[in-house]
Formats: sequence, structure tokens, C-alpha cells
Amino acid sequence: MEHVISVLVENRPGVLAHIAGMFSQRGYNIDSLAVGETMDSTLSRITVVARGDDRVIGQIIKQLGKIVDVVRIVDLAEKQHVSRELVLVKVACDNKNRPEIMQLCDIFRARIIDVGHTSLVIEVVGEPGKISALVELFKPFGILEICRTGRVGVFRGEKILKSRND
Amino acid sequence: MEHVISVLVENRPGVLAHIAGMFSQRGYNIDSLAVGETMDSTLSRITVVARGDDRVIGQIIKQLGKIVDVVRIVDLAEKQHVSRELVLVKVACDNKNRPEIMQLCDIFRARIIDVGHTSLVIEVVGEPGKISALVELFKPFGILEICRTGRVGVFRGEKILKSRND
Repeated sequence: MEHVISVLVENRPGVLAHIAGMFSQRGYNIDSLAVGETMDSTLSRITVVARGDDRVIGQIIKQLGKIVDVVRIVDLAEKQHVSRELVLVKVACDNKNRPEIMQLCDIFRARIIDVGHTSLVIEVVGEPGKISALVELFKPFGILEICRTGRVGVFRGEKILKSRND
Repeated sequence: MEHVISVLVENRPGVLAHIAGMFSQRGYNIDSLAVGETMDSTLSRITVVARGDDRVIGQIIKQLGKIVDVVRIVDLAEKQHVSRELVLVKVACDNKNRPEIMQLCDIFRARIIDVGHTSLVIEVVGEPGKISALVELFKPFGILEICRTGRVGVFRGEKILKSRND
């Protein structure tokens, strides 16, 4: 099963290495990981996407929860949640096929954020299925490079990942 | 100066912990970090945003480049580049102020991806300035939680982060 693990941590050097180390010590490769600031400048929020044995991932989550700098940890996949990823794709293009690429971007609600003589950069946000579909569609034009943020997510509705004082 | 470090790495357990450890050993806190898949399933791409002494960051980059599993490393901030971040914001709302929130989302080209009785989730992509402006604007409604991917970026134009065989 896929796990979308959301972790609120103290904003201190070493926390990320500690968390990443917990997965790698068990030979677990992380599909994606994203760390960003929160409204509280002393806390960061890390989202890890990992696939694998539910029992082992459950153990990792339990052990992560014991780290002093981990304030909260939840597996979003256990409840209704929304998750999204941002992807920048540099596609080869010329005057002839640019209109076709622009049309495809419109359909995918993707945006062109840079244009060169022989390439352009597309910004697209979506769930994994949408991202895969877009990448497949642009392959024939020539994908020069791709840069993905990894997924982030929140619970649907009012439920939130509580902070330190909640 | 702000550094946007783009690293192409072998997709092996331990690489991320190693890289994060390099920063924390020097007491450097990372502003954001994003790890995602690439077109080559054996490689991942990591984007680190860090501020600090150029000389020290330069040393860290040089040392990261020596790690066996690091295929390429560049500081995007040295050249013209585009960078973006995805942010999910859960905002308190009711029937009365929902239209106002929807209007602000339109202006920011943000999308509402979930609606509850007393809250909604907004998806927005942008550069740091745009994200800060949106967050400030939504504060009076009540921001319940925020989840950020950290920034990703690519060079403008044709220049790319070359892969293993380039």
C-alpha cells in the first residue's frame, strides 16, 4: 500500500537526516519527500510518500514519532485526503509544434513559464495519474528534463495535522 | 545569498540522509528540500533551497559532488532560472465569506480542491513572493494549516541539468 506520511518537526539541523535515515536503515527507498515551512517559523512540515509492507511502514512511523524533534506524525492515506504534486517539464519545441503544445497545456491546465528558441518549460500540478498522462503525451516532442516536488497532502474537510499546542 | 541547489542522485536508500547530513553537520538548516522521480527510474532529483555564507555553501556543494551516488550538482541561482513552489492552504470559511475567498483565488490563479462545511483547501503555485502575498491575504479568514512542497527549479532556455550519459 502507498503511504503519505505527514510529519510536523522542529526546525533544527539534523531532523531531516534523522528521518531519512530511519527509512534507509531498513533498506526502504522513499518515493518522494518534500519539506516546507509552516505558519510557525520554528516548525517544518515534511511529507514522505513510501510504498511497502504496511507493518514495516507502521513500525517506522511509530519510531519516527519517538524522535524528540517530531511534533506530530500521521499517515494521510488512512483517511480521506487530497494530495498534489508540482512538476516542471522542459520540452523540446519549435515554431511548428508550439501551437500544439500550447493546446495540450490548456487541456491539462498546465502553464508555460519559460520559452526558448528550441524549448519551453511547463508547470503542471496534479495527482500522480494526471502527471503520468501529461508526461506520456509530451514524450514524442522530446522531454529534455523534469523536476518534481514530490507530493504534499492534507486531510479533506476540517481535520488537520495538529500543531504543538493543540 | 539564496542558493537553489539541484542534485541528480542514484535512487538508493541512504542518499538523502547523506545529503541532509552534510548540511546539518555544518549547523546549516535547509529552507526547503524536494525529492522527486525523474524520467530515468534509477535517478532522483533533489532540489535544496538554503541561505547562508556563499563560501560555506560552495564548500558543501563541492563535497556533495564527491558522494558516489551524486551524478550531477548545480546551483541554479548562478544562472537565469525559473523556480516554483506548490502550497496547499486550508482556510476557515462559511457560506458568507466563501464568495470572497473564491474571488481572491481567481485573482491568484489558485484552485479550490476541497470544500467542507467550515473550511476549504486551496492549491496555489508560485514564486516565494506570490505565496507570501496569498498567505497574508488569507490570514484574516483563519489559516487552519499549510503544507508546502519546497521550491523546484530549472534553468531558463535550453540549458539543462545533464544526466549520467550526457
